[in-house]
Amino acid sequence: MSKNIIVGVIGAGRIGKIHIENLLRKVPNVKLKIVADVNVDNQLKQWADDMGVPQLITDANEIFTDPEIDAIIIASSTDTHIKFIQDAAIAKKHVFCEKPIDTELKRIRETLKIVKKEGIKLMVGFNRRFDRNFIRVHEAVSSGQIGTPQIIKITSRDPSPPPIEYIKVSGGIFIDMTIHDWDMARYQAKSEVVEVYASGAVLVDPEIGEVGDIDTAVAILKFKNGALGIIDNTRQAVYGYDQRVEVFGSKGCVMADNEATNTVRLYTAECTNIDKIPYFFLERYMESYATELKSFFDCLKNNQDPTPSGEDGLQNVLVAIAAQKSFKENRPVKISEVDI
Amino acid sequence: MSKNIIVGVIGAGRIGKIHIENLLRKVPNVKLKIVADVNVDNQLKQWADDMGVPQLITDANEIFTDPEIDAIIIASSTDTHIKFIQDAAIAKKHVFCEKPIDTELKRIRETLKIVKKEGIKLMVGFNRRFDRNFIRVHEAVSSGQIGTPQIIKITSRDPSPPPIEYIKVSGGIFIDMTIHDWDMARYQAKSEVVEVYASGAVLVDPEIGEVGDIDTAVAILKFKNGALGIIDNTRQAVYGYDQRVEVFGSKGCVMADNEATNTVRLYTAECTNIDKIPYFFLERYMESYATELKSFFDCLKNNQDPTPSGEDGLQNVLVAIAAQKSFKENRPVKISEVDI
Amino acid sequence: MSKNIIVGVIGAGRIGKIHIENLLRKVPNVKLKIVADVNVDNQLKQWADDMGVPQLITDANEIFTDPEIDAIIIASSTDTHIKFIQDAAIAKKHVFCEKPIDTELKRIRETLKIVKKEGIKLMVGFNRRFDRNFIRVHEAVSSGQIGTPQIIKITSRDPSPPPIEYIKVSGGIFIDMTIHDWDMARYQAKSEVVEVYASGAVLVDPEIGEVGDIDTAVAILKFKNGALGIIDNTRQAVYGYDQRVEVFGSKGCVMADNEATNTVRLYTAECTNIDKIPYFFLERYMESYATELKSFFDCLKNNQDPTPSGEDGLQNVLVAIAAQKSFKENRPVKISEVDI
Amino acid sequence: MSKNIIVGVIGAGRIGKIHIENLLRKVPNVKLKIVADVNVDNQLKQWADDMGVPQLITDANEIFTDPEIDAIIIASSTDTHIKFIQDAAIAKKHVFCEKPIDTELKRIRETLKIVKKEGIKLMVGFNRRFDRNFIRVHEAVSSGQIGTPQIIKITSRDPSPPPIEYIKVSGGIFIDMTIHDWDMARYQAKSEVVEVYASGAVLVDPEIGEVGDIDTAVAILKFKNGALGIIDNTRQAVYGYDQRVEVFGSKGCVMADNEATNTVRLYTAECTNIDKIPYFFLERYMESYATELKSFFDCLKNNQDPTPSGEDGLQNVLVAIAAQKSFKENRPVKISEVDI
Repeated sequence: MSKNIIVGVIGAGRIGKIHIENLLRKVPNVKLKIVADVNVDNQLKQWADDMGVPQLITDANEIFTDPEIDAIIIASSTDTHIKFIQDAAIAKKHVFCEKPIDTELKRIRETLKIVKKEGIKLMVGFNRRFDRNFIRVHEAVSSGQIGTPQIIKITSRDPSPPPIEYIKVSGGIFIDMTIHDWDMARYQAKSEVVEVYASGAVLVDPEIGEVGDIDTAVAILKFKNGALGIIDNTRQAVYGYDQRVEVFGSKGCVMADNEATNTVRLYTAECTNIDKIPYFFLERYMESYATELKSFFDCLKNNQDPTPSGEDGLQNVLVAIAAQKSFKENRPVKISEVDI
Repeated sequence: MSKNIIVGVIGAGRIGKIHIENLLRKVPNVKLKIVADVNVDNQLKQWADDMGVPQLITDANEIFTDPEIDAIIIASSTDTHIKFIQDAAIAKKHVFCEKPIDTELKRIRETLKIVKKEGIKLMVGFNRRFDRNFIRVHEAVSSGQIGTPQIIKITSRDPSPPPIEYIKVSGGIFIDMTIHDWDMARYQAKSEVVEVYASGAVLVDPEIGEVGDIDTAVAILKFKNGALGIIDNTRQAVYGYDQRVEVFGSKGCVMADNEATNTVRLYTAECTNIDKIPYFFLERYMESYATELKSFFDCLKNNQDPTPSGEDGLQNVLVAIAAQKSFKENRPVKISEVDI
Repeated sequence: MSKNIIVGVIGAGRIGKIHIENLLRKVPNVKLKIVADVNVDNQLKQWADDMGVPQLITDANEIFTDPEIDAIIIASSTDTHIKFIQDAAIAKKHVFCEKPIDTELKRIRETLKIVKKEGIKLMVGFNRRFDRNFIRVHEAVSSGQIGTPQIIKITSRDPSPPPIEYIKVSGGIFIDMTIHDWDMARYQAKSEVVEVYASGAVLVDPEIGEVGDIDTAVAILKFKNGALGIIDNTRQAVYGYDQRVEVFGSKGCVMADNEATNTVRLYTAECTNIDKIPYFFLERYMESYATELKSFFDCLKNNQDPTPSGEDGLQNVLVAIAAQKSFKENRPVKISEVDI
Repeated sequence: MSKNIIVGVIGAGRIGKIHIENLLRKVPNVKLKIVADVNVDNQLKQWADDMGVPQLITDANEIFTDPEIDAIIIASSTDTHIKFIQDAAIAKKHVFCEKPIDTELKRIRETLKIVKKEGIKLMVGFNRRFDRNFIRVHEAVSSGQIGTPQIIKITSRDPSPPPIEYIKVSGGIFIDMTIHDWDMARYQAKSEVVEVYASGAVLVDPEIGEVGDIDTAVAILKFKNGALGIIDNTRQAVYGYDQRVEVFGSKGCVMADNEATNTVRLYTAECTNIDKIPYFFLERYMESYATELKSFFDCLKNNQDPTPSGEDGLQNVLVAIAAQKSFKENRPVKISEVDI
């Protein structure tokens, strides 16, 4: 591979823009050549120009057929992921794909087969694995500092629900929101989920219930290595984006608390005040997006398999599907039940 | 009621001694008259003498028949609670009884009927309700500071398992250990549990599994008011007695962290050190035992019904029984299923 | 010495009452026999009766002449300390005396000579040395965990000024309030002060300035072992009793933060709230008073010299006098200048 | 002023590189045109090339004479600052100059006169004012949340001393290291220093003493508004770059603690561990350098006077000179004594 990896990006929406900015400014030894987006309007043109994007196009196919392109970042809408991964694989270009790969097992499996057959590298964008705090938790687990993991505990709460139109097509909270937590739990447990019990309620906004979803969720996981997991989610934590991870083990416990906005305490006659925690994922996880891309390109350079892998993407969807079934039938569901 | 309430104590074991010391030194306007214990040996005599216990006897009946005695603290073994509460009720003496009242629903119900009929006051010793931190959490909930409670989250981990002989007769983790958490969850949710899903594993000591119990447990609760609860327990947290309570609501979230042994941080070339959290319940909850007795006697003085009440004791056992059934059958169990 | 040390207390004001309660309830193997106070009114009689004080008298001499009394707690007004210590020494009774011994060097020196000649043990009540946090700091220093102490930093702020009548006769902030910090600095530095520069201002209440005192003070200390000290004081911290100690050394730094009222954090849409720190010394240092008495009586039992010693009391006054001179002349003052 | 401000940078050493990277990647609406450095070697050429520096030259004069250049960043060695500021002023180019302007009062005054006469804007790089934590402290002060500032307390400790060759020509700790703290104290107090007492010692490395400097310093400040300041410095805190600021006032107290490397706590059987604080200024203050440049260019765009101003740079040097004199003569020194 040449000194600089030549990259194309498909999708210049909110998350695509983050990747483009990181490619241009924070990831070394990488050269962004083309950005493709189905909707190239003046605003996007202006943004791309200000940012220094060399080429902005509407037809992603030009990326697949460009012989210079080494790797492709897929940040387009979820329903296009499968096709773009397959096209990239056939064109022998490595892929970083935003999560989730897809919401259907069969399509994911087919795609992973093609990826394998064509021999390209595939990474799926579960960016929270690249948060410095959760990496530190993982190090404590991996180095044996807490012994054998026994309880994985994740708190993951959004500050406010997405628009109801979004929720309608989201696939439900367990695949739209909790998917990050399934991944985090598997990452920290270093083991696969074998059973899930998921429960939940509509406590934030009745309209969410009316479109068939819930806004508050809890789940218990059982892992192959015997560990247990507990997760809680809500679509609305008015105090900010509450993101905590804890792994309890035979020799100790490691806990990642929320990031603070600053280190200041204000002591007054009434009480002591600390400023609110970061508002949402852009504020909290911005750094992780750059770290994740660096990791992807490091793997390409060193010919290593990137993680989270396509298999991780598959497993997370499997747990989500099992959780959906568990919630619907109000009983624990084995992953093997849905893994067909 | 006379200025000083005259008190008898049944049981001078570990917890009985705590109550005796609190009665003699920390609870105002109370007079300890008699302590009864089935095993009065020289060591106990010496302890009672040093402490200033006026009278130490072996036969608890002398307490029930002593016309001066206003109230009785029952701190004897669990299998004697029922009989002593009933005897006290018939003797028209108010009762503070250690938790649990009993492990059988029928006996508890009968006893509560007698208590009601005789018109005595009954308080059950769920001391954690009197921990200053959990009281503060409760105040935040009660005052509306966090809005409507939606998620109650409890972490409750012992530092090391009790002897295997104890575990054999303990009734199982859900009634022996988690009972405190069922109570805490109900106290903070301000609502009754309607369904529980409990799971667990033997991860600490295989011998615990061999005697038919588990040592690691997780549970999800559904409350009548719609709130959800999540609890995790282990018999062995090597870093100390991990006791945290969190209530998430529509307007905020209130979290009680572990007490610290001291406020000191030690910064070195390797890392920053904080001393371990308090070892176990004697270190962590000592203050709560005095506060709980004060609350009991305040209720007697002001002719109010003390809480946690006999009904609280009953509800906690109901949840425990449902949790046992849930774990055994690996399915969520409604309280109404076991409330027969 | 008999199994139980027989004790008399002189002075039943605010601090005397704390000592009496601790003697009766928290210090083992000690027997309070007599309490003497110049003002025995009905309120005090009632309090003593409720508390279980065996004998309440007005003439302290009865304590000195009582052959049963082994040790005397002096908690009367500062101007009586010298005489009572001397009387006790001549009567061969050990003494715990509240701080300060006196405000005049000459009288302190004479008294210490008599104490030495008569061979009694003398402890001076700098209770902060017995705070669990500051003990932990001291352990870190003593055990070498932070290497050689280089900077001792003390923040000591009262929540509100005493009455102006008190300030008038207090001897000034450096001897009335900072005296605790001189002692703490010497205790943590494990070295004597050789020079002090003290400065200050009237920033809280102009009336304090009108009676010749200041209400805000800062000081820099130089210790014999080369370490430097910095102290800041104010008579009014509206957020509570701010008491922090930090020792920086060649291998690390140890910091004792303020005690918390509870461990609870309340997260809301506006900010995160922590309850105020403890209000004043009764709330913050209550435990230290019992620990200090236990230490005194342990020394008597084991025939060890108690600390803080009479010499500590003397050194603290020396630093205070040097600080007063420094402030008045606005220049650093060597202890040797005032140690005459 | 055109949409993009055209910028030249003089000096591409450690701090110059930071500014260049920020100009290229983090500061919007700015265009870096030329970088000048007296030592352009292959390594620097490579770095500039990788970074995307348009033009790399050795003769700074080309920047002054380039009519396109609007503003100049001066990051060359301190002894060149005066000349470059004057040259820039005469060339009517705005200046951001690294701290300190110079170490001699007379030269600073002359330069500020020229700056004023030529009407350019001048900002001096006291970057800590742009740290998010200290900004938050300042907001609390400015908004009145803590009332009238009464005590400003700064802890500022480096992780390890610079090379002895550096120390020899540094001008001494009070102008080399404490200069940041004089600025921070003035910034937070919102008032000028009127008197300083500075003390210190050689506790870290005797060689520092041999070249006539000290490595540990403490100081007390008096401000025009009556507030008091206390500062402590050391060249070697083995646990990292200890940077804390506290402002105590009539209505409360605001404290900025050290930044954490992550939010993780590791609980083990021995103790609880937190990772070390950030190592040094590159880790701790990196963000502040970008914020500071943004602030400078915002002022240019909006025709506002940037701060810290040239006058700030002058005042900080004045306090440093007074502190040096104070240390040498061991007495408090008024700023008016040295402001000649």
